[in-house]
Amino acid sequence: MRKLIGWWCLALALMPVLVLADEGMWTFDNPPIKQLKEKYNFTPTQEWLDHVRLSSVRFNDGGSGSFISPQGLTLTNHHVALGQLQKMSTPEKNYVANGFYAATLDEEVKCPDLELYVLQELENVTSRVQGAVTADLKPDQALKAREKEIAAIEQEYKDKNGLKCEVVSLYHGGEYWAYQYKRYTDVRLVMAPEQKIAFWGGDADNFTFPRYDLDMAFFRVYENGQPLRTAHYLKWNAKGVEENELVFVSGHPGSTNRLSTYSQLLRQRDFLYPQRLAMIDKQLEILRTYSSRGAEQARRAARSIFGLENSRKALGGEYQGLLDDKLMAKAKAQEDDFRKKVNENPQWKKEYGDGWDIIAKVIKKQTKNAEQNSYRGMALSSRFASIANQIVFYAAEVKKPDSERLSGYHDSQLEQLKFRLFSPAPIYKDLDEATFSGMLQLAVEKLGAEDAYLQKILQGRSAAQTAKEMIEATTLDQVDVRKALIEGGSEAVARSTDPFIVLARQLEPEQRKKIEEDKKSTQSLLVPATEKIARARFAVYGKESYPDATFTLRLSYGTAKGYPMNGTKAPYRTTLYGLYDRSISFNQQGDFALPPRFWERKDQLDLATPVNFVSSNDIIGGNSGSPVINRNAELVGLIFDGNIESLVGRFVYDETSNRAVAVHSAFMIEALRKLYDAGKLAAEILGE
Amino acid sequence: MRKLIGWWCLALALMPVLVLADEGMWTFDNPPIKQLKEKYNFTPTQEWLDHVRLSSVRFNDGGSGSFISPQGLTLTNHHVALGQLQKMSTPEKNYVANGFYAATLDEEVKCPDLELYVLQELENVTSRVQGAVTADLKPDQALKAREKEIAAIEQEYKDKNGLKCEVVSLYHGGEYWAYQYKRYTDVRLVMAPEQKIAFWGGDADNFTFPRYDLDMAFFRVYENGQPLRTAHYLKWNAKGVEENELVFVSGHPGSTNRLSTYSQLLRQRDFLYPQRLAMIDKQLEILRTYSSRGAEQARRAARSIFGLENSRKALGGEYQGLLDDKLMAKAKAQEDDFRKKVNENPQWKKEYGDGWDIIAKVIKKQTKNAEQNSYRGMALSSRFASIANQIVFYAAEVKKPDSERLSGYHDSQLEQLKFRLFSPAPIYKDLDEATFSGMLQLAVEKLGAEDAYLQKILQGRSAAQTAKEMIEATTLDQVDVRKALIEGGSEAVARSTDPFIVLARQLEPEQRKKIEEDKKSTQSLLVPATEKIARARFAVYGKESYPDATFTLRLSYGTAKGYPMNGTKAPYRTTLYGLYDRSISFNQQGDFALPPRFWERKDQLDLATPVNFVSSNDIIGGNSGSPVINRNAELVGLIFDGNIESLVGRFVYDETSNRAVAVHSAFMIEALRKLYDAGKLAAEILGE
Repeated sequence: MRKLIGWWCLALALMPVLVLADEGMWTFDNPPIKQLKEKYNFTPTQEWLDHVRLSSVRFNDGGSGSFISPQGLTLTNHHVALGQLQKMSTPEKNYVANGFYAATLDEEVKCPDLELYVLQELENVTSRVQGAVTADLKPDQALKAREKEIAAIEQEYKDKNGLKCEVVSLYHGGEYWAYQYKRYTDVRLVMAPEQKIAFWGGDADNFTFPRYDLDMAFFRVYENGQPLRTAHYLKWNAKGVEENELVFVSGHPGSTNRLSTYSQLLRQRDFLYPQRLAMIDKQLEILRTYSSRGAEQARRAARSIFGLENSRKALGGEYQGLLDDKLMAKAKAQEDDFRKKVNENPQWKKEYGDGWDIIAKVIKKQTKNAEQNSYRGMALSSRFASIANQIVFYAAEVKKPDSERLSGYHDSQLEQLKFRLFSPAPIYKDLDEATFSGMLQLAVEKLGAEDAYLQKILQGRSAAQTAKEMIEATTLDQVDVRKALIEGGSEAVARSTDPFIVLARQLEPEQRKKIEEDKKSTQSLLVPATEKIARARFAVYGKESYPDATFTLRLSYGTAKGYPMNGTKAPYRTTLYGLYDRSISFNQQGDFALPPRFWERKDQLDLATPVNFVSSNDIIGGNSGSPVINRNAELVGLIFDGNIESLVGRFVYDETSNRAVAVHSAFMIEALRKLYDAGKLAAEILGE
Repeated sequence: MRKLIGWWCLALALMPVLVLADEGMWTFDNPPIKQLKEKYNFTPTQEWLDHVRLSSVRFNDGGSGSFISPQGLTLTNHHVALGQLQKMSTPEKNYVANGFYAATLDEEVKCPDLELYVLQELENVTSRVQGAVTADLKPDQALKAREKEIAAIEQEYKDKNGLKCEVVSLYHGGEYWAYQYKRYTDVRLVMAPEQKIAFWGGDADNFTFPRYDLDMAFFRVYENGQPLRTAHYLKWNAKGVEENELVFVSGHPGSTNRLSTYSQLLRQRDFLYPQRLAMIDKQLEILRTYSSRGAEQARRAARSIFGLENSRKALGGEYQGLLDDKLMAKAKAQEDDFRKKVNENPQWKKEYGDGWDIIAKVIKKQTKNAEQNSYRGMALSSRFASIANQIVFYAAEVKKPDSERLSGYHDSQLEQLKFRLFSPAPIYKDLDEATFSGMLQLAVEKLGAEDAYLQKILQGRSAAQTAKEMIEATTLDQVDVRKALIEGGSEAVARSTDPFIVLARQLEPEQRKKIEEDKKSTQSLLVPATEKIARARFAVYGKESYPDATFTLRLSYGTAKGYPMNGTKAPYRTTLYGLYDRSISFNQQGDFALPPRFWERKDQLDLATPVNFVSSNDIIGGNSGSPVINRNAELVGLIFDGNIESLVGRFVYDETSNRAVAVHSAFMIEALRKLYDAGKLAAEILGE
């Protein structure tokens, strides 16, 4: 599973350099032309690049996808679609468990809050953003000036072409780009198989290979009530990929920390990862208990459990990388060498030399109340609490001039904010109560009920009582209530007696203080320090590289090939024979059971059909649903995971064993036709 | 591949204690009754134990097997049979590549030098052996007295019942047993599949799982020209094993070092393993070069290359265990604790306390000339050299009274010695020259041609010239010549002008000196020191345990079950579906190609047939070919390997992931019937 793991941004990372092997998540303005030419004798034209970019889709709830027909048909992973599938499901119509297929347009079902972006334009605005920060400004003024300029740019572009503009910081402030997206919100479900086969092998097989998953889902984008006419879409190549064939992945890797400073790595190893893993374990414990209450509870919690297990395995693998003394020693040696080179040049030393020490100092400061902050942060693990918080802040922020607002509340961001806030997707009160109560209880246990912050929430009650009373009383589960509060503005918010709104109002001043403090004592120091190191890196090593991942569109290249695995070799692909082998080998039990249709129609299948394959493409969470394409920009596969050996890829890419895992194009067609009676969909995909 | 790895005995190891989990290679006089009762509610009767023991066969060229029909039919691994198959093959009749099947008794082919042992009787002779060592003896006298007593016992038993007797030291001298074997030398080949499917997946898949190998071979034991009437044989259970079912392995594990002292582990890690691995690499390089000369050369070298690759992977895995700092720290901590307990008791301290220091001191002494000795040892890597050496020593030793002779030349051992020396199996001069020349050259490079020992071999010539001249001139490749020298005794040896005999004569005095020195300065100290530690262990921890492996018959128990593997789970078994999956996934190339019959007859096969399975039985090299049996002593599988996670099992058993790998009984029958047209053999096996 390679869906973007939506957790707090770990720490800043620094720009990677010295690109070897099939490494890199390249921006479309700076594709790896030289490497492709030298290693594969292939040079993508501008037309090729534009076509691929305009066929690529960002799923804003954390994944990637692509257009695959001229009628707006869009392919992504089942696990990217999972959130929407769950929101659309009811106990009677369980699309997650049973799958879905709309044989006609009329049967296609609109998703409650799915939002797709297509990157239409991108423009370098580095000089504007950096120009806003003048030498006379103090750090916190500089930070504010930069933010203001970014908000202004985003609004300007929106006014100009109506596209949704996001200013992206690349190379950690080395460059700023205005990414302009076409935004689609009328997206309808076309087809999804049973989760059982999409996520076959379950948590055990997750992040591993050999693999046998049909992790696909099909949506259709509509515009003005009609299927979108997509000029750019990827033609399907049902033969798929050959061993050692050059392939590309175009998608949206979420984040990497390829060149964090050593002090940042230590902070992650010694605090952030253990803390986060412990929190996931607690959440899983709560959800599993809830889930065990009955079938409907199990259905409601399934998506969250799935996501947490996925995160747990991913983070666990990354953490292993941090615990690897050799890897850490290498990181240390590289940094030492880098700093030595900087210090040997008096000019560089003066301009950049203190970057590392500033970061280390900031981290030391962060460490002080880190545990307290972390547990306080867990105390309000309720969807209602975060909705209330957004409403309270919204009411206050929109009254300010755009440039003065907090990030997230600029004019250019309000449409998206409301789209999410007004989602008709159900919020289950009993599920929310279980999580809220459990995590609040943990905070109480760790910090004591006398903690000043917790007292404001508890007001003398137990954690369980607090959650019960507040959730019983809240009406924020109704979209209309949320709408009325937003439309009523600060007066409506001030008048509200909803317990979550009341609490959010009460916590607001403290929260604002904390944001300001963080800006002043952390961000205003950290941002220029990382910029210094980024510039030092340009100076010492030159500029031929790619920026760390930022959930923006990237192109990676590689070849379909196996790798050394656990004492033997993993092949570059698997076949349907293997699916049946593994299922029978586990006595068809648990996550290794197959949907009945796989047994009923087995004899109709060509068991030699390739199922999944691996390639050396450099990807990470957020790339889920990305198309794998060949030199002709034909779709040969669908990224859905990385192997276990790739988890350390957050910090370092190793071509020996880092592999992206994809669904083979042939398997998707074989399944649609022979297992799901979706010949019509297959025909549309194949352009027949 | 779990064939006994025939390398120098690494170092002495100490008796394991504290048996948990499914651990242990138990002697038949001391089966794990308590553990079986407690964990599996099963108690084998004496009759059960006797039946299993008498159905178990030792393959003296390094493996195990079992009787599986009342007509002497014997099952083992293809890779245990491989040496014989190669010796029986010619360029025209290549049994290794093409397999073999004798549909009638007449077609069965006699093996050139296969020797099978069945353990008939075992008797505790501890008091006799230990009683021979009296307090007044000096260390070297004690060693001699012990050896003399052992030789006497072996001869006595042989005279008494005609069985081949071997006195075995268990628990490192804690116990001595007279193991009495029935010995069979008329053994004929019945059936072997193509090596391609027996060793499917090649060196890559070796020591790994999931696995898909048909690693079986069938022999028939004859007595007086007739198939042996075997009263004890294992009934076949074609349904095989269920998940979590209790199973036993009865076979001959070669050696383990479960409780080496920490100083011994360090010696292995820092010298023996790196040295041995480097030597294997060199040998492989030589053989691959030879092999590349042509098809016939490739055929001749195949067996040796196979064995070396197998050793390389096994030793490499074991070496990884030694390089694991956590494992080493644990070994250190355990030893520290053990020694502390010994030292806290004044009596124990006095009797056993210096055992570890003596061993450490001896090791330190060994380290001095270790590298020189090692390279000198490689200088004569010729079969002819070792034959000549045996002949020269034989002639001298047999003239002495039995009790004065060197080990290997006692009366009770001569029959076996001659059986091997007079083997009609071909020795390829060109292959021998390649190895001899290459390894001699390495010794010259490492020690310099002026090295006194090497000078005696080289006599002024280059390594290549030396090998060429000596091998051209020798006639020791003829069995008659070897026989004439043995029969002619020391006079014939003295008269011989064969260059290898001449050289062996010349080196004899020096070699004898070295053996004496080793006894005096090493063995006479080491043996009592390890005995001390063994006794200390009895004293501190009690006696409920099993001895380290000694290539004698052992019983291990466990269940068929999967294990955590490389981020996911390995199932407990594989199926024929998986064989085709993996073959196609690798484009049917190289070691993943299948014999044509597997494609031609695919549709006749039941692809759900289990192929291989894993169980938690504690085994090691030498167990290859062991039967896996259920509670009813029915054969459900055939051990042929351990997984990669089990390689560290030389030092420590971990039930979490240590697995024995076996061919499933159902696969063997399915293959015999549907792929090899060997229905008659299948019928005999099934008793039909």
